[in-house]
Amino acid sequence: TIRWVGRYGFDLNTATTVDTQLNVFADFQPVPPDGSRDAEIIFLANIDPDIQREVLRQVNSPRLTMLDTMNYWIEAKPKELTQAMAEVDLVTMNESEIRQWAGDYSIITAAKKILNLGAKAVVVKKGEYGSFLLSRTGYFLAPAYPLEEMKDPTGAGDSFAGGFLGYLSTVPEVSPVHLRRAIIHGNVVASFAVEDFGVNRLLNLTRAEVAARYLEFRTFTQFEEP
Amino acid sequence: TIRWVGRYGFDLNTATTVDTQLNVFADFQPVPPDGSRDAEIIFLANIDPDIQREVLRQVNSPRLTMLDTMNYWIEAKPKELTQAMAEVDLVTMNESEIRQWAGDYSIITAAKKILNLGAKAVVVKKGEYGSFLLSRTGYFLAPAYPLEEMKDPTGAGDSFAGGFLGYLSTVPEVSPVHLRRAIIHGNVVASFAVEDFGVNRLLNLTRAEVAARYLEFRTFTQFEEP
Repeated sequence: TIRWVGRYGFDLNTATTVDTQLNVFADFQPVPPDGSRDAEIIFLANIDPDIQREVLRQVNSPRLTMLDTMNYWIEAKPKELTQAMAEVDLVTMNESEIRQWAGDYSIITAAKKILNLGAKAVVVKKGEYGSFLLSRTGYFLAPAYPLEEMKDPTGAGDSFAGGFLGYLSTVPEVSPVHLRRAIIHGNVVASFAVEDFGVNRLLNLTRAEVAARYLEFRTFTQFEEP
Repeated sequence: TIRWVGRYGFDLNTATTVDTQLNVFADFQPVPPDGSRDAEIIFLANIDPDIQREVLRQVNSPRLTMLDTMNYWIEAKPKELTQAMAEVDLVTMNESEIRQWAGDYSIITAAKKILNLGAKAVVVKKGEYGSFLLSRTGYFLAPAYPLEEMKDPTGAGDSFAGGFLGYLSTVPEVSPVHLRRAIIHGNVVASFAVEDFGVNRLLNLTRAEVAARYLEFRTFTQFEEP
């Protein structure tokens, strides 16, 4: 698999790439296994945008597609990446990646450029600062779950995507209300993931724990009219 | 007045101090002007903590006091600052200041240390990432108003304090519900302040604009139960 070597900053919120080795993925030709061509929801996790597009060509008619990426592809294959982004329903990136891709400091301006490619919504992951969603109907901001101690941010983005798309797989349509709920589910799952190293915490995570933390999110974000 | 020379980072979200000159405030003896000794609400803005404490001694019986500070005092007078913090109802600092004061990266841990001094609540200002409130009844997180373009972050913290305490001055008690509304009012006023240089935008800001942006905050932060 791809070998990424990087460093996390003191705050565990910023990652610096030291080296990326594609290894077997340098010449990888994806072949979706039996059954997966009919998947309703397709998540194109961080990989070569040409591979992401090849996967899209091989699936039948998913009702929802989402793409993630990383600084490596923004630098190595910007044109192919932008083309892949134009072919999916949802794009997710972290804060520094979307700024790098757009060449613009403003996350709002950058996200609008992605909507202009045709995406229905853009989800910007801001680590300990939560998530920003921009869709054609407006935007939504959700903080990260406040953790007094975080052990390992590795996989936070992928576990966010899992919680986010996992929720959307349970509802019939990607409406504004459901997108918001999906963002909170993504933040909830990511908050569990970083509580322990690797996937340790996710291995014993229960639906009840996810539901409880979702409700807890409401207790510290909601406020009344003036 | 105090002359602070600093630099804002590329993201306008972090400030680096180059030089601080106390000038006349080096030997300043505060004397509250006539009428202000009976003020109901006292905001001890960033200044020498000994001066902050002296002001507290000279006011009669305010129903609410809040203290702000800066890296300069955390380094130069940590003991006096901590003593001043122990004498007020509310403490506000930005993210890097509270970490520096507490010697702890975790904002939750740092804020708990301030509650242990006796404060009723702690408000951590996170710039473009919004505000974090910790009180004895729990915490509350509010994003900053998403601005596509920001012109000048100078004074964002003081305008936050103005909106925050201005709201609390209109309600009879500092309840959890009112503290949340106060945070949103603070974020709203700060968001206007940074839209233009200096106090330009605040000079022509209306109550109706504040109220409209408050309601707008609800549209991009609220979400339903799962």
